[in-house]
Amino acid sequence: MRVLMTGAAGMVGRKLTDRLVRDGTLNGRAITALDLHDIVPPASVDLPGAAVSVHSGDLAEPGAAAALTAAKPDVIFHLAGVVSGEAEADFDKGYRVNLDATRALFDAIRLAAYVPRVVFTSSIAVFGAPFPEIIPDEFHATPLTSYGAQKLMAETLLADYTRRGFFDGIGIRLPTICVRPGKPNLAASGFFSGIIREPLAGKEAILPVPRSVVHTHASPRSAVNFLIRAAEIDGALVGPRRNLTMPGVGVTVGEQIEALERIAGGDAVKLIREEPDATIWAIVQGWPTRFAATRARALGFAAETSFDEIIRAHIEDELEASRASSS
Amino acid sequence: MRVLMTGAAGMVGRKLTDRLVRDGTLNGRAITALDLHDIVPPASVDLPGAAVSVHSGDLAEPGAAAALTAAKPDVIFHLAGVVSGEAEADFDKGYRVNLDATRALFDAIRLAAYVPRVVFTSSIAVFGAPFPEIIPDEFHATPLTSYGAQKLMAETLLADYTRRGFFDGIGIRLPTICVRPGKPNLAASGFFSGIIREPLAGKEAILPVPRSVVHTHASPRSAVNFLIRAAEIDGALVGPRRNLTMPGVGVTVGEQIEALERIAGGDAVKLIREEPDATIWAIVQGWPTRFAATRARALGFAAETSFDEIIRAHIEDELEASRASSS
Repeated sequence: MRVLMTGAAGMVGRKLTDRLVRDGTLNGRAITALDLHDIVPPASVDLPGAAVSVHSGDLAEPGAAAALTAAKPDVIFHLAGVVSGEAEADFDKGYRVNLDATRALFDAIRLAAYVPRVVFTSSIAVFGAPFPEIIPDEFHATPLTSYGAQKLMAETLLADYTRRGFFDGIGIRLPTICVRPGKPNLAASGFFSGIIREPLAGKEAILPVPRSVVHTHASPRSAVNFLIRAAEIDGALVGPRRNLTMPGVGVTVGEQIEALERIAGGDAVKLIREEPDATIWAIVQGWPTRFAATRARALGFAAETSFDEIIRAHIEDELEASRASSS
Repeated sequence: MRVLMTGAAGMVGRKLTDRLVRDGTLNGRAITALDLHDIVPPASVDLPGAAVSVHSGDLAEPGAAAALTAAKPDVIFHLAGVVSGEAEADFDKGYRVNLDATRALFDAIRLAAYVPRVVFTSSIAVFGAPFPEIIPDEFHATPLTSYGAQKLMAETLLADYTRRGFFDGIGIRLPTICVRPGKPNLAASGFFSGIIREPLAGKEAILPVPRSVVHTHASPRSAVNFLIRAAEIDGALVGPRRNLTMPGVGVTVGEQIEALERIAGGDAVKLIREEPDATIWAIVQGWPTRFAATRARALGFAAETSFDEIIRAHIEDELEASRASSS
């Protein structure tokens, strides 16, 4: 089993790499080769019995995708992408990375004339307001960002290339990943993680929106589980609709904070400072709130079922793991 | 008012050209320039007071779209495209013409740094089975042909380029155009027109599917009306969801035949020979049946309200018009 991963230096890529190293197998077969690619060289890993290679560069460059797929990997995780804010700020870069590089990768596989499983990370950004309270699987995609438009176009390519037999693709629309490890960032969605991560580390966090805001979350651990499930699932079960909205936990910010209090106590919650920010609130109001994700659940994609579980996953995977590795 | 039209040599392009010549105006302004483009040179027309130019070539070629938009047309009708059967048979050509040439045109406008109205003909082929009995405006697009995938990607570009202020686009998803003038063709949908057009001309027509088959139609005259409405509508009324499913007349084949009998009598109907074709029926069963088209109707896009009207439009626009011009 040869595995190729693009975007391997990103947060989800690093966690997926760790999982593959821990499992040593994918879909019941030993991993014998692991190729990790990103625009900058991802960290290498030690996977006994497997040839691990690290690659870097611009996938949209002529020949880059063909070189990367020349060894005919059995499973390709295509995680690479420019994030929403950057795709909005730099039009050309967003289309080049999120659309052209994806198409270059898909075409390289098509022209290599074999049929690997391709797992592509799409996003709930394919949806654009106004939304029903719970977005059903059959709701139309009308993105309101260039990032969302690029993801939707890549999804459309993936489904068409799969239908034509060029590869066997599964696109997964990730909800907001929470609790995101690392430092606070400037993303408008950053507070969803910040109000949990920072108090758990004894630090203050800013809450810029009302507690009534509803949003859907899945842990980094669930994101990795989605990717593994997408790599393993029988394509015949999925049928021609290859892009699936992933499940998650739909909660209000108030419910997030109640979960934090149950797990970490009232002192932790006191570290959350409410500081309304009209700009952030306006952005957040354009985002979808809840998803039915009926098909994905039926196909075995499982997320947490409560926000408490999401916090516990963060504590286990980040805080306890880092304590264990430093002791 | 400068007008540019791609795909001007096609059936809808020729009818739109005739309409512009007849009106002499668009959106209340006199047409002073009319540029007609297609892969082969479209027929020129005489439009008093306007500079009419005919252009031909491959829009996906570097520089071609920039040359065509250099004069900064106020309204651009982008009708050019490879049809469904050809896009399925020739993968590279379909993506090149339907996606790459469209993107090249959109980028040429973006880089010309002005904001024309762009009217793009999409198709109900963006939808893929299974469908509800009546497809609502918010139903997701999951194409089952490369043509449908290319149209969906072009729609997505159009909406994003409009949102970013690069141009002011309207995409219209055309239903089956019926009664199609001309000779019978080999398209799987050809019989929908054939069973009306041929008997009206005193010729036999083959019906390859059961009379219970339901399908949505609009006349060529309505297709032109849709295009004119799309050129004239205030974009602010449309909002960010720029791709609209057009209305039409949803009828069974049996109802089509009853309408023919009311208008042309029992002898005409006797010219329809039922000759079931399992292959054609299988293809037709994958097609959507009816559309709500609620938004388009509310925005002033009007089609016929009965199949009788569609037949009368054909008689007026094709049979009586050709009789008048030959007398």
